[in-house]
Amino acid sequence: MSEYRGYEGNSLEFLKQNQIVVGDAVKLLADITYSGIIMPRYEHSDDEHIVLKLKSGYNIGLEISKIEKVEKEQVAKKITETNEKIEKVEGLPKILLLSTGGTIASKIDYRTGAVTPVLTAEELNASVPELAKIANIDAEVLFSEYSENIMPEHWLKIAEKIEKFSKSDYSGIIIAHGTDTMHYTSSFLSFALSGFPIPIVLVGSQRSSDRASSDAALNLIGATKFITENNTNGVYIVMHQDENDNTIACHLGTRVRKNHTSKRGAFQTIGDIPAFIITEKQTQKNISKNYFERDEFQPKINLDTKVALVKYHPGFDPNLLNQIIEMGYKGIIFEGTGLGHVGKVMYENVKKANEKGIFLGMTSQCIDGRVRMTVYESGRDLLDLGIIPLENMIPEVALVKAMWAIGNSQNVEEIKEIMLQNIASELTN
Amino acid sequence: MSEYRGYEGNSLEFLKQNQIVVGDAVKLLADITYSGIIMPRYEHSDDEHIVLKLKSGYNIGLEISKIEKVEKEQVAKKITETNEKIEKVEGLPKILLLSTGGTIASKIDYRTGAVTPVLTAEELNASVPELAKIANIDAEVLFSEYSENIMPEHWLKIAEKIEKFSKSDYSGIIIAHGTDTMHYTSSFLSFALSGFPIPIVLVGSQRSSDRASSDAALNLIGATKFITENNTNGVYIVMHQDENDNTIACHLGTRVRKNHTSKRGAFQTIGDIPAFIITEKQTQKNISKNYFERDEFQPKINLDTKVALVKYHPGFDPNLLNQIIEMGYKGIIFEGTGLGHVGKVMYENVKKANEKGIFLGMTSQCIDGRVRMTVYESGRDLLDLGIIPLENMIPEVALVKAMWAIGNSQNVEEIKEIMLQNIASELTN
Repeated sequence: MSEYRGYEGNSLEFLKQNQIVVGDAVKLLADITYSGIIMPRYEHSDDEHIVLKLKSGYNIGLEISKIEKVEKEQVAKKITETNEKIEKVEGLPKILLLSTGGTIASKIDYRTGAVTPVLTAEELNASVPELAKIANIDAEVLFSEYSENIMPEHWLKIAEKIEKFSKSDYSGIIIAHGTDTMHYTSSFLSFALSGFPIPIVLVGSQRSSDRASSDAALNLIGATKFITENNTNGVYIVMHQDENDNTIACHLGTRVRKNHTSKRGAFQTIGDIPAFIITEKQTQKNISKNYFERDEFQPKINLDTKVALVKYHPGFDPNLLNQIIEMGYKGIIFEGTGLGHVGKVMYENVKKANEKGIFLGMTSQCIDGRVRMTVYESGRDLLDLGIIPLENMIPEVALVKAMWAIGNSQNVEEIKEIMLQNIASELTN
Repeated sequence: MSEYRGYEGNSLEFLKQNQIVVGDAVKLLADITYSGIIMPRYEHSDDEHIVLKLKSGYNIGLEISKIEKVEKEQVAKKITETNEKIEKVEGLPKILLLSTGGTIASKIDYRTGAVTPVLTAEELNASVPELAKIANIDAEVLFSEYSENIMPEHWLKIAEKIEKFSKSDYSGIIIAHGTDTMHYTSSFLSFALSGFPIPIVLVGSQRSSDRASSDAALNLIGATKFITENNTNGVYIVMHQDENDNTIACHLGTRVRKNHTSKRGAFQTIGDIPAFIITEKQTQKNISKNYFERDEFQPKINLDTKVALVKYHPGFDPNLLNQIIEMGYKGIIFEGTGLGHVGKVMYENVKKANEKGIFLGMTSQCIDGRVRMTVYESGRDLLDLGIIPLENMIPEVALVKAMWAIGNSQNVEEIKEIMLQNIASELTN
């Protein structure tokens, strides 16, 4: 790693003048005194700031013109791009950290668009020194994709990798993952690895670790603490609870959605509070049920992507539904309106889809609440036409579950049975 | 109206024995004393309850076995199914009430599924006597559809009807509407009737007026008060703020979604508090900007439904996008992931769509927050391929706006311009 990595122009000059380099622990006097470590920069948008990693785990950007005094407290250790290993502490729990890409494992040049290679295991570890005090972490790069490019094939790879560790001495598995589709991946792992004996925790960040105000470090620490402090299993997403820096939320992997494009507290448990809330002082457990319906580990790592998600709206062209039928889809998850409706204009093709043996499941575009198709005429009509109401399953989860159910079934009756069975907390009361 | 309308078996017997009929004001002693008016019943699920309309506007169901004493306070006026007019009080503001169907204007037999004809104007009025004290209401049935069956053709009918009253002496227009697609209709009216001089208020109910705990009356009263107490214009949705019976929320018609399948407080302003909060004592105004960008009334009551809403997800088959292109769609609104992304697997067909002159707009399935396509490589790629980022426009609103923009444009450049122009608060800071 260059001693001045990412710094240019004035900010580079500032570091040189003050004889400090990336990795040095310093005290900086500006409006108040800041203690922390000089971080590399990857945002090249200006050369007027340096980035300091505070003890809280947060990075802040400081304007160099406002820094009155620089005091070096500790010289940078030569932590670096080599494969130097973090030292393991005997007696600490073991965790496997798999990286799949995403903001949490990326270094981005926001101006040029170049993405530097994924953080290696040791880089991730080194960037969050707190982790080594909580657990001995083995880390491995599985692949490096932004999560909008994570495909069902990647879900299979992740599941196949994790399956091997069902009888390991790990206390849990952390998956660093892009946030965009993290809840789709957590859903698939929930079904494919039903009953997996140790917790599987997906963690991401809304702001990359080289940005001031990155949430990467705190989320990683939260995930690690969640695993070491709770004797549980299941698949979870661990992210900031809200915009505050002191609370981490642990969401059930089948009950969670990314509900904001940019906030650090973007992930929300739908219709409930998060399963666990983690602060520096304690972990608060808000659930009493087990995550998996069964205790035995029953991996079923298969899927069939021939499932369409159809969001009904006024003006929806029923011919589009017909196209989906003709394209050979095996399942259709409707995001209906309200309690689970689509307009009468759709009935003919719904009937046709049912006659062709396509699985038809109903969820609601309201997202929160439960479909209930016996209240209104439309709902009863659709039940008659063969649509299965999927209770309070979140549409995206129903989509993933249908892909998985179809990949593990011989016929539509079996698919229906699986879809209505609570496997991994996807159906709650 | 039958004197015992909807009552059967034990509950009918109970009314006869106590010599009370529908419409009588009574005091009933059960666990506490209830004062109210005996309401007709349409839920035939049991004959053990009678429905009482309390002074609060709410209906409650009382179990007849628990009623210890019945005291008649006032004999039912002969309000009925005739066209008898509610008396107008001189000097009160005038409001036009249009009914389009939906739960608020329906009487449902939940057991048989039969839907009795829409409530007439005078029935709606009579069912909420408080209205006549606030405003002189002229009422008209436009049509009678559950909102999952409201089509863009219905939007046009509503807009064409309202347009005629731009120079009337009405203080506002109330549209009774099913809740399922109410926010789609409010969006269309916002664009088609941009600058309309008096407020247009959509109101619905989550529980029909013949059910205990119906929200119909309070929502109607809230809508009426909102119009008479606020000198404003724009298109709004007025519904319960939450599960409490004392607070009504008034949402901007382009910033609102039905976010719960069944709760009375199902409608939420996305990313903000509601524009107005109405309690019995006061109206709290939370916005400072005008609803419409321009003051002049510029009706443009046209649309083209050839717009598809494409919600991207892992496993989305790009061939489906290709089908949409081949089917002659003129616009595609993407519900992308996160800040506005779709996977690389879609690029080829996105490029093709753009080359065919199809309008391509990006929103986020996160729903809350703003798309920002310059942050990540994927976003920049998609900008290069011709996708237009639609800021913080809600996906459903973007869909409706695109239908409207295409119906009022000559070419794709004009559509793009309209889509990025703030017309009716659909784009906010």
